[in-house]
Amino acid sequence: MFVDEDNITDLAVRRWATAHSPRTAELMTALVRHLHDFAREVRLTEDEWMAAIEWLTATGKVCDDKRQEFILASDVLGLSMLVVQLNNRFSPQATPATVLGPFHIDGSPAAPYGFDMSEGIAGTPLFLTGKVTDIAGKPVPGAVIDAWQADADGAYEAQLPEVDEARLRAKYRTREDGSYCIRTIAPRGYAIPMDGPVGDLIRGTDISHFRPAHVHCLIDEPGYRRLITHLFQEGSAYLDSDVVFGTKEALVVRFTERPAGPTPDGGSLERPYLHAEYDFVLQPCD
Amino acid sequence: MFVDEDNITDLAVRRWATAHSPRTAELMTALVRHLHDFAREVRLTEDEWMAAIEWLTATGKVCDDKRQEFILASDVLGLSMLVVQLNNRFSPQATPATVLGPFHIDGSPAAPYGFDMSEGIAGTPLFLTGKVTDIAGKPVPGAVIDAWQADADGAYEAQLPEVDEARLRAKYRTREDGSYCIRTIAPRGYAIPMDGPVGDLIRGTDISHFRPAHVHCLIDEPGYRRLITHLFQEGSAYLDSDVVFGTKEALVVRFTERPAGPTPDGGSLERPYLHAEYDFVLQPCD
Repeated sequence: MFVDEDNITDLAVRRWATAHSPRTAELMTALVRHLHDFAREVRLTEDEWMAAIEWLTATGKVCDDKRQEFILASDVLGLSMLVVQLNNRFSPQATPATVLGPFHIDGSPAAPYGFDMSEGIAGTPLFLTGKVTDIAGKPVPGAVIDAWQADADGAYEAQLPEVDEARLRAKYRTREDGSYCIRTIAPRGYAIPMDGPVGDLIRGTDISHFRPAHVHCLIDEPGYRRLITHLFQEGSAYLDSDVVFGTKEALVVRFTERPAGPTPDGGSLERPYLHAEYDFVLQPCD
Repeated sequence: MFVDEDNITDLAVRRWATAHSPRTAELMTALVRHLHDFAREVRLTEDEWMAAIEWLTATGKVCDDKRQEFILASDVLGLSMLVVQLNNRFSPQATPATVLGPFHIDGSPAAPYGFDMSEGIAGTPLFLTGKVTDIAGKPVPGAVIDAWQADADGAYEAQLPEVDEARLRAKYRTREDGSYCIRTIAPRGYAIPMDGPVGDLIRGTDISHFRPAHVHCLIDEPGYRRLITHLFQEGSAYLDSDVVFGTKEALVVRFTERPAGPTPDGGSLERPYLHAEYDFVLQPCD
């Protein structure tokens, strides 16, 4: 069977349909069809095709232990957030999921109620308090909230090679009544890395390359769907233009300014601080 | 504007439509739509998405000066050959184009009529003769045929780090009557590299990972469309299953067995050889 412009897609689909795993066959044949549809629709030139090859190669080269440029590419194309939503169709009452991002580190240290995970890093003190509950409002005691965030320069620990202990990340456990208290510093909006192939693409557009201020939280509790989410600061810059499409209305939380004095963990501070209250609502497993 | 499963594609398309180059905007918005359509259609799981990120990263890591695994991926998905055909819609009388492949080296040495570009490499002698003409059959004198091929082990010079002079490649020039004579050794079918991420994909299918025997030719003559093509040996294994979809009926040529004696270059050989006759017909520029 010889190849021409009209039969090549069918030929390629038939070949990849021979994948031994039915799911792989489904994925690869769909990939072939959509890739070919794209090339036909835009009538991709040979120079553009080569530019794409070179862009993919450069993107692979820039990836290392601290940086995942393909995830960043998926993020800025809206693909990551689409995949999150396709796979986390929770009830409207449940806390919605958003992107994991490339900076989560496994094995954060366990932290007691009210522990300050910023441990002296400069910033405005922030207390996050509330409960973890099921959809009916019943508290979930002993649930682990794995929290992480960037510092005031937008840097995550995963991006800082010189750091050798947990930095701005910790695992909090809810008390008997489902309550938790995280102490940290106020997150700030930050720019995604713009010195790689993704930055090159974005610079050729009017797309804002910033993310609004947020704290990441992951709750993976038996009996409930794993929840990977952020809490965004109400009024933060870039909420409407998050470069990775991660914002959802239900995840925007007021960070209330409090005067020096008693704090939500039962202690007190000699300086003003911020306090955000948020109840995480977990989706039950099917 | 907050993101949900229904609006994310429109949001992403609107953002990438801000690309300053209209063509970039067209390409990127189409890419977003087709990527999202793919993910929705197969309901891509988060694990599959991560496997794709890891596959892309590994593919980038395996690319170097001698190897272009993304081109190989594009080849085995039929994308390379589709792009060739979208961009080389020649008249039916013209010699059709096929894939360039990743092994072309610029600046091959000029070779006289009948020059043996195999220069002692083991194999059955092969003479390729014919003319280069325009669509009306008028000879094109002085046209340069840039020819290259793999050795009997399927290795191209570009894959052999120890080689420091031209090996199985040369530039032949047509004579006043448009005629050319290339002497080489018979090419053989060969396997694409199977030790990388593309091989991993193919091993999970029944796809044959071989290419039929062929010699590459590139003719880039002023006044004519650049012609990048192969000549395939009639009866070669894998003609019907070329892993990169490169075969076209008009490029399959009979390699006739000739006894020891006079050769098409006016010389003679003391052993049997093969002779293939092919006239390259160039498509005029628009």
